Amino acid sequence: MPIPDPVLYPPFNIIRLSHIAIGCKDLAASRAFYVDTLGLQITAEDDNAIYLRAMEERGHHSVILQRSDDISVKILGFKVFAEEELDKAHDWFVSKGHKVEWIDRPHQGRTLLTHDNLGIPIEFYFKMERLAPIHQKYALYNGVKPLRIDHFNCFVPDVDKSVAFYNEIGFRTTEYTEDEDSKRLWAAWMHRKGGVHDVAFTSGTGPRLHHMAFWVPTPLNIIDLLDLMATTGYVKNIERGPGRHGISNAFFLYILDPDGHRIEIYCSDYQTVDPDLEPIKWDLQDPQRQTLWGAAAPKSWFEHGSVFEGVETVASDMKASPIIAP
Amino acid sequence: MPIPDPVLYPPFNIIRLSHIAIGCKDLAASRAFYVDTLGLQITAEDDNAIYLRAMEERGHHSVILQRSDDISVKILGFKVFAEEELDKAHDWFVSKGHKVEWIDRPHQGRTLLTHDNLGIPIEFYFKMERLAPIHQKYALYNGVKPLRIDHFNCFVPDVDKSVAFYNEIGFRTTEYTEDEDSKRLWAAWMHRKGGVHDVAFTSGTGPRLHHMAFWVPTPLNIIDLLDLMATTGYVKNIERGPGRHGISNAFFLYILDPDGHRIEIYCSDYQTVDPDLEPIKWDLQDPQRQTLWGAAAPKSWFEHGSVFEGVETVASDMKASPIIAP
Amino acid sequence: MPIPDPVLYPPFNIIRLSHIAIGCKDLAASRAFYVDTLGLQITAEDDNAIYLRAMEERGHHSVILQRSDDISVKILGFKVFAEEELDKAHDWFVSKGHKVEWIDRPHQGRTLLTHDNLGIPIEFYFKMERLAPIHQKYALYNGVKPLRIDHFNCFVPDVDKSVAFYNEIGFRTTEYTEDEDSKRLWAAWMHRKGGVHDVAFTSGTGPRLHHMAFWVPTPLNIIDLLDLMATTGYVKNIERGPGRHGISNAFFLYILDPDGHRIEIYCSDYQTVDPDLEPIKWDLQDPQRQTLWGAAAPKSWFEHGSVFEGVETVASDMKASPIIAP
Amino acid sequence: MPIPDPVLYPPFNIIRLSHIAIGCKDLAASRAFYVDTLGLQITAEDDNAIYLRAMEERGHHSVILQRSDDISVKILGFKVFAEEELDKAHDWFVSKGHKVEWIDRPHQGRTLLTHDNLGIPIEFYFKMERLAPIHQKYALYNGVKPLRIDHFNCFVPDVDKSVAFYNEIGFRTTEYTEDEDSKRLWAAWMHRKGGVHDVAFTSGTGPRLHHMAFWVPTPLNIIDLLDLMATTGYVKNIERGPGRHGISNAFFLYILDPDGHRIEIYCSDYQTVDPDLEPIKWDLQDPQRQTLWGAAAPKSWFEHGSVFEGVETVASDMKASPIIAP
Repeated sequence: MPIPDPVLYPPFNIIRLSHIAIGCKDLAASRAFYVDTLGLQITAEDDNAIYLRAMEERGHHSVILQRSDDISVKILGFKVFAEEELDKAHDWFVSKGHKVEWIDRPHQGRTLLTHDNLGIPIEFYFKMERLAPIHQKYALYNGVKPLRIDHFNCFVPDVDKSVAFYNEIGFRTTEYTEDEDSKRLWAAWMHRKGGVHDVAFTSGTGPRLHHMAFWVPTPLNIIDLLDLMATTGYVKNIERGPGRHGISNAFFLYILDPDGHRIEIYCSDYQTVDPDLEPIKWDLQDPQRQTLWGAAAPKSWFEHGSVFEGVETVASDMKASPIIAP
Repeated sequence: MPIPDPVLYPPFNIIRLSHIAIGCKDLAASRAFYVDTLGLQITAEDDNAIYLRAMEERGHHSVILQRSDDISVKILGFKVFAEEELDKAHDWFVSKGHKVEWIDRPHQGRTLLTHDNLGIPIEFYFKMERLAPIHQKYALYNGVKPLRIDHFNCFVPDVDKSVAFYNEIGFRTTEYTEDEDSKRLWAAWMHRKGGVHDVAFTSGTGPRLHHMAFWVPTPLNIIDLLDLMATTGYVKNIERGPGRHGISNAFFLYILDPDGHRIEIYCSDYQTVDPDLEPIKWDLQDPQRQTLWGAAAPKSWFEHGSVFEGVETVASDMKASPIIAP
Repeated sequence: MPIPDPVLYPPFNIIRLSHIAIGCKDLAASRAFYVDTLGLQITAEDDNAIYLRAMEERGHHSVILQRSDDISVKILGFKVFAEEELDKAHDWFVSKGHKVEWIDRPHQGRTLLTHDNLGIPIEFYFKMERLAPIHQKYALYNGVKPLRIDHFNCFVPDVDKSVAFYNEIGFRTTEYTEDEDSKRLWAAWMHRKGGVHDVAFTSGTGPRLHHMAFWVPTPLNIIDLLDLMATTGYVKNIERGPGRHGISNAFFLYILDPDGHRIEIYCSDYQTVDPDLEPIKWDLQDPQRQTLWGAAAPKSWFEHGSVFEGVETVASDMKASPIIAP
Repeated sequence: MPIPDPVLYPPFNIIRLSHIAIGCKDLAASRAFYVDTLGLQITAEDDNAIYLRAMEERGHHSVILQRSDDISVKILGFKVFAEEELDKAHDWFVSKGHKVEWIDRPHQGRTLLTHDNLGIPIEFYFKMERLAPIHQKYALYNGVKPLRIDHFNCFVPDVDKSVAFYNEIGFRTTEYTEDEDSKRLWAAWMHRKGGVHDVAFTSGTGPRLHHMAFWVPTPLNIIDLLDLMATTGYVKNIERGPGRHGISNAFFLYILDPDGHRIEIYCSDYQTVDPDLEPIKWDLQDPQRQTLWGAAAPKSWFEHGSVFEGVETVASDMKASPIIAP
């Protein structure tokens, strides 16, 4: 299927991805990883959960670590433009037959819990507790100096269907990979906030979270993180990189948290606010789409992901990407 | 006056600043500066004008160099979200008593010429000739490796009035400097595209352009440009920096083109897409708002600017900023 | 064998590695690679040879590209401290039964050609044509911005023997890898000029050149080179990296020239001028000695090398390093 | 006077500058500055002194902070090549009529205390307590990530005389500034260890220490330090920079410690091991020798310095440098 035309006037106005909640077996281990190693800042903490923000964020949280025997992903959160957009979202999801629920999420205002076309639990809110800026508290910068959450990437069994769903609610495709033979999408990158993506989808058993991503200032911060992880017991948690993606042009590193949730550290993509920005098409057979510099990704990167709580997964019928490391 | 509340549903939808046209006495000299030194790319060129884009831009031009004995600034250009926004803009400006005109601008679609509250010539368009991406043509990167035009900054005699005008058409204030005594604004930064600013205003004789700015990947690109300019005859064109602004947190450099038009090279501000992002207030007496690291700006930086073609200027009655270098 | 004690008062005073001459099938292709892509500067050029220097070098050449059907390495060159050191070197090599010859090398003064313990052709000189500094001619910087030649690395069948030979002529070992079982050296790094190495040896069929290396200012220059090579037809010439070596702590990239000669781009090792600096020992079984961050090197990196002109090679009887990528 | 010819075979073999001891009124304040802000590592500490090393140093100390009401500089220390060089140094200084004394310096072997031509207290040693490497303990890196002490710079009333003295003991001049009219030296940079300098001299009331310097990996570390100091109460301690020196080509920052001792943070000079490296001459009237990019240094930078304990100072009769900021 061709990429659908962007829906410029969507049924409700999402402004950006906002936060993720994940299950963690051992909060102390997760704290050592996300706080002491990555450098995220704690904004609230109790025996069951740790709330984190990155250095330029003024909302209360972008990551919630939840103590849980079930380490699945609990929620992907999105911020809407205004309080009334929540009601429009509610009505739209109802009209589409999705389950909806108004829930209490600590530190957030009115929050709508629902799910996407595949059952991925997603929530929408407008108001979140606002915190004082810390982006100029340079003594707090640590680890990779994470500035903000950047995107979610999910394995899905049928990328065309996920793109159709997210397109309908206003996400615009910036880049995509197509299988030349079947004309089906292998992967797609879609945004609301003006970067290459807020959400991306790649073919595989799903729905599962492939990774969450954080934006950092320069490639040197990624090199600093590699040096730190390599000499503090985290060398096995380094999965792939550093490298440059052909797609998005981002400088990247993929790492795994203590529960195996994958995180991308990311910088240097580009501005995409133009509504008439042409999506960039990549051929599934072009190895440079994955890594501009030619190094293959490890097999785990194409296979491993985090399930969503209570959501069954389905295998993709797309052939595996031909660019796995031998 | 306090900062006005943001207008979340403005009369027409501007998505970003887009381009600037400036008068140049000697096109060859300007070409040597903008193309060979800064690294902007030529997209069209004749005896009277050179059109330029930065590395990640796919619109035809963000800078137009016009051969002219009058080296004033000709136009500040903005892109709107859709064709119909042009008509809304037309009607709004007419209703406010501003002069409006549909003009032909080469390489652009339908273009509305009008002026702001002070007479600054501004134009709006939706369609501009689209060009193939070059952001991964790394052999073309040169000079400071400019990625995109970032903002315009103008001297105006009454910042409160300019902020009121731009606020009404949807620009949201991210940071501002207030005179504690008079409660008047000394300066303000306002955005549409999700960064700290598309336009900024600072007290002074105006309206005049203080500077246009380009976004670059890292501070090291700015250091590279300084080394290049310092050893290719442009040392006198280096006016201020490098440094870190307190306001915007940007790493900056100010340089002057062969006609004295000021350019800021800029990186590392922050994302501002949240409509409820609280503006950051700075005190006029706080020297770190100007330069986080404490170095004073040269006097020229507070005084020199480029007039707009055919627009009279008026002195500000605000006292000069106390943080001029002695 | 244990690392031999450093010889603090060697028979003659070598101050540093200096230059390399290599055979190239197609000088135009080599020029495109070394000059247009890497950024070395041409100091002399005719139909048969191109002489190159890096940006901070004031001697006439550090690389000589020689048109030749035989693409073997022609010479490794070293600079001595004074003219009289050449005579001391001459007498020492004669006393050891090595062939010696005074040769004419264009742009060099009196030059002693001889060979090392394995027959590697080496030459010594004191005087080389001196050129004006270009390290502040920033308009000339290009490609990876190479500052200086840094070291040679050779495959040799018996590292203990090569270390013994170079130790005797004053090279001091900074780091080494030992096979815990046999107590034999797997690899060693040895210096004269105060960095981690001027020469290094690694177990393998040899003698062959594993690589020559150039020093660059920061890891970002290496990322720039990767982007450039990946988008100008050289993606297949990228062999390994970027990464951080455990040994030497250097940030590295390995690339192959059009004839398959391997080049390391290198930065951030450390100062080693103390004569009592303790060599750092690494275990052959420690994968972080190769890559601090854990990524395995490709098989080619352990196997491919450049022969020296007219020198027979011998296989090593050491087992292959266990850290080859599967 | 012309620069003297280098003494290639000096009376004793100094390999590098090594350490400095300075008086500090408040050890806790100095600790906060040198350890928590700059990132030097404590190797020994008691009520009266703190010993520090930088990240790649394996000798016990490069800075000694001594609690003292007299905040003068106590000693400049140098390491010699071997134990016997100490005796040669002893005899040479005796022969020149300098006071000499064998002293006990904690953590050092046999140490010769003497003074230079102007009475600057200097000491020589070969053995210092050796510590385990920490350059790959990345969790310890902090502040500006200082790698090693780089040089001392002193105000002296007659640069020609100081250059003559240090030249005689083997320091080689790499760059110098000459007053075209009088042909007298304004300033000179001299090395032993293969960089642009171990010691430098500049015209002014002296002898006084102008600054000590530390080497850091990249300009971005200097920017990090500026951000940290500017937001942790040290903005007044930032004196000059960042910038690029014409002389030495180094990227620099000058800061003041709590007692007013000046420190340069420094990177990117060049290798100078060639004994026939031609010194680079700068004209006193060339403003780019000071700052390649053209910004003038503040007056304090030309006037303020630290006296040496018990050493009288004498004014220079050279005219002040014409490139002071107005």
